[in-house]
Amino acid sequence: MPAPHSDPAALAPVLDRIDATLPEAVDRLLDLLRIPSISTDPAFKADCARAADWLVADLQALGFEAAARPTPGHPMVVARHEGPGRHILFYGHYDVQPVDPLSLWDRDPFDPALETTPAGEVIRGRGSSDDKGQLMTFIEACRAWKAVHGSLPGNLTIFLEGEEESGSPSLVPFLRENRAELSAELALICDTGLFADHVPAIVTMLRGLAKLELTLHAANKDLHSGMFGGIALNPIRALTKILGGLHDDQGRVAVPGFYDDVAELPEAVRAQWQALAFDHAAFLGGVGLATPAGEIDRTPLEMIWSRPTAEINGIWGGYTGAGFKTVLPAEAHAKISFRLVPGQDPEKVLAGFRSWVEAQLPPDARVEWHEPNGSPAGQMSIDDPAFEAARQALTEEWGAPAAYVGCGGSIPIAGYFQTELGMDAMLIGFGKDDDQIHSPNEKYDLDSFRRGIRSWARVLDRIAG
Amino acid sequence: MPAPHSDPAALAPVLDRIDATLPEAVDRLLDLLRIPSISTDPAFKADCARAADWLVADLQALGFEAAARPTPGHPMVVARHEGPGRHILFYGHYDVQPVDPLSLWDRDPFDPALETTPAGEVIRGRGSSDDKGQLMTFIEACRAWKAVHGSLPGNLTIFLEGEEESGSPSLVPFLRENRAELSAELALICDTGLFADHVPAIVTMLRGLAKLELTLHAANKDLHSGMFGGIALNPIRALTKILGGLHDDQGRVAVPGFYDDVAELPEAVRAQWQALAFDHAAFLGGVGLATPAGEIDRTPLEMIWSRPTAEINGIWGGYTGAGFKTVLPAEAHAKISFRLVPGQDPEKVLAGFRSWVEAQLPPDARVEWHEPNGSPAGQMSIDDPAFEAARQALTEEWGAPAAYVGCGGSIPIAGYFQTELGMDAMLIGFGKDDDQIHSPNEKYDLDSFRRGIRSWARVLDRIAG
Repeated sequence: MPAPHSDPAALAPVLDRIDATLPEAVDRLLDLLRIPSISTDPAFKADCARAADWLVADLQALGFEAAARPTPGHPMVVARHEGPGRHILFYGHYDVQPVDPLSLWDRDPFDPALETTPAGEVIRGRGSSDDKGQLMTFIEACRAWKAVHGSLPGNLTIFLEGEEESGSPSLVPFLRENRAELSAELALICDTGLFADHVPAIVTMLRGLAKLELTLHAANKDLHSGMFGGIALNPIRALTKILGGLHDDQGRVAVPGFYDDVAELPEAVRAQWQALAFDHAAFLGGVGLATPAGEIDRTPLEMIWSRPTAEINGIWGGYTGAGFKTVLPAEAHAKISFRLVPGQDPEKVLAGFRSWVEAQLPPDARVEWHEPNGSPAGQMSIDDPAFEAARQALTEEWGAPAAYVGCGGSIPIAGYFQTELGMDAMLIGFGKDDDQIHSPNEKYDLDSFRRGIRSWARVLDRIAG
Repeated sequence: MPAPHSDPAALAPVLDRIDATLPEAVDRLLDLLRIPSISTDPAFKADCARAADWLVADLQALGFEAAARPTPGHPMVVARHEGPGRHILFYGHYDVQPVDPLSLWDRDPFDPALETTPAGEVIRGRGSSDDKGQLMTFIEACRAWKAVHGSLPGNLTIFLEGEEESGSPSLVPFLRENRAELSAELALICDTGLFADHVPAIVTMLRGLAKLELTLHAANKDLHSGMFGGIALNPIRALTKILGGLHDDQGRVAVPGFYDDVAELPEAVRAQWQALAFDHAAFLGGVGLATPAGEIDRTPLEMIWSRPTAEINGIWGGYTGAGFKTVLPAEAHAKISFRLVPGQDPEKVLAGFRSWVEAQLPPDARVEWHEPNGSPAGQMSIDDPAFEAARQALTEEWGAPAAYVGCGGSIPIAGYFQTELGMDAMLIGFGKDDDQIHSPNEKYDLDSFRRGIRSWARVLDRIAG
């Protein structure tokens, strides 16, 4: 593969065309946003199919061989253009979140519009940022390229899912059944955000997730604390005693062996992250907090990007209604999850936690485990020159150095591309923290949309064809 | 007051009459049991009034001045007979628990009957043990006495409540408004049980209760653990850490000062309790447990009768439904109660707990307290010779030494008689652990009913008149 390089003569007219035809690109996005493709609600099944068909027609008009491919759920849109160069697969999703509570929306979520706000123009409507607006940035870049050069830029597959917001039940089977067709050399995923206002980012590190639920059993029925209080085992007491020791005084996870396979962050990455000058006070202040609550010797960015965690996501037991019942319940419950970093095996982490809990059970206590499952962390190989090429392309477009960043959450598609198709992904997106995704009044900045299209044109200029 | 003494010549014919007329007494109880006086359900308001009227009519027929006295809730039955000797007030309650789940009853709960079982004859029906059958033991004893001697035995007030199973909202106001009339020299309460099969008991020590609910606040909204996990305070983690330290490794409550006002059990009482040979293995085994879970240096009976406790009666926070959400919730909750022993001030115990929690709050955590309330423990003065007289009377009837016992639960009426009316109570009852009170198929042993009536005749013979 030749080293990626930019061809300014080819790129400049594409960028010009993107700017000149932006109103038409917005109109197309508004068209797509009008289709209420809520994947989780069966009432919108036909709308999901309609959104897929809309995209197929648009991609066909652009010269892709495109089809809506049936699944047991909503269709997958697969579009192919055989061209020169590396085979690159672009992923986005056309389904959207539900809109309730509708009363909190300032406009019909499926009657989208370009609105002028004090902070600039925004495209308002469900899916504008997550993920229709983002996936259209790539398609619009292709359209401008085709209009200027007469052909699509390189060897492309576009793969658009319709179940991302409902757990992607058909995804892995579809990847397996179509492995040969979908296995490209590199994936591009547009479903993430900027690092900060006007600071673009490529996500190269994704935490994994392991989780399970436990039930701690004690007596064979609920007991009255008047009769049994003081002599009978209270499972809530046992559960809080055990889970209360999940972290030590340094904020470290206290389960033996938990950090065995956790590597230290490479110095270069640490240095780059420090240069990002992450404003953790603003990050936490936005949700009413002030103090980083993780390991005391780690920086805030390490806490959310590169260190594993243990969290109690739910706990319940005994009487939880209005008033009071002096009950000693028969059982208590908790849902526990672990964010994992590269090197950690979800099975091993869960097994270590289970052993640790079981070793602490008091007499008469019995623990039952439910639905343990997990997915490992992802780490992209930035040795692939395409990463540095994309980073330069983004830096040029946004006027600020693009950052390689971590992502505290799990983006399962990136992991599946690695495990099922053997390809790494570049996660590049233009969403902003205030986009209100999954919430009322979702928006996408017109600036994100425009620069997003231009960003992809620059990235394709460097890595495709 | 002369020392209580028995008059065998007066007593014997009363006991004979009780046995001879037992079938009629059972029929009267069945009549009362047919009235569905469920106090907590407004649909049965008229039935509660009907039960009160039934009792008034019966007591009037016996020669009491009796009336159903209105309250904002269900009526109180007050019956008075001025006679010679100490003024003694008897308390019972005519209301009953709801009957659901009805499907688990083997017969209509309000179509009671005398049933023959392998373990003997039982009176089956809602309220048979709790508390209609028990209150009728006293009335039947009075009836037999009157039949034999032509007059009621002594200076009596009978006070029957209709809201005991629904929190007694009218009780304290009624006691205050009628203080002069209801303040006797000693109360008798029939709402407890035998210590063991055929081993009668007088409860002289009742644990108190202090309770509150707390909400531990962290972020101003629920957070996603992908984005915030590792840096944001998880209130469930903070709550389990704090509550997990509520007891030390010896099973003692770890709140500073908690035991400051707790006296050691007098040696005489401890010796008597040891003589009771409490079968804690059977007690715990009946609910699927084996190991006493309280303070490791205390006997099982101390744990439930004479030692204070701290219990988490409910805990909840985060996602508790089916499946999983990797949420870091904005808040977590718990309901905590303390069983108190004589000497402990509920206000002081709650204040100590609050300070202990607040001192352990991590940065960004805030605790909110709800509905703190409490009632102190009760201890009856067994120096009153009536106690020893009653103990002898019970011992004679049952053929086994009657025990002074503690009661792990709170029986608020006994406390209110002390605090509102300034009188101690003797708590004597004939219920058994297998009576299924508050549950389907409630029953009262015919033996409990017969010997209960005879017990009251013997007690009245010694302490009344």
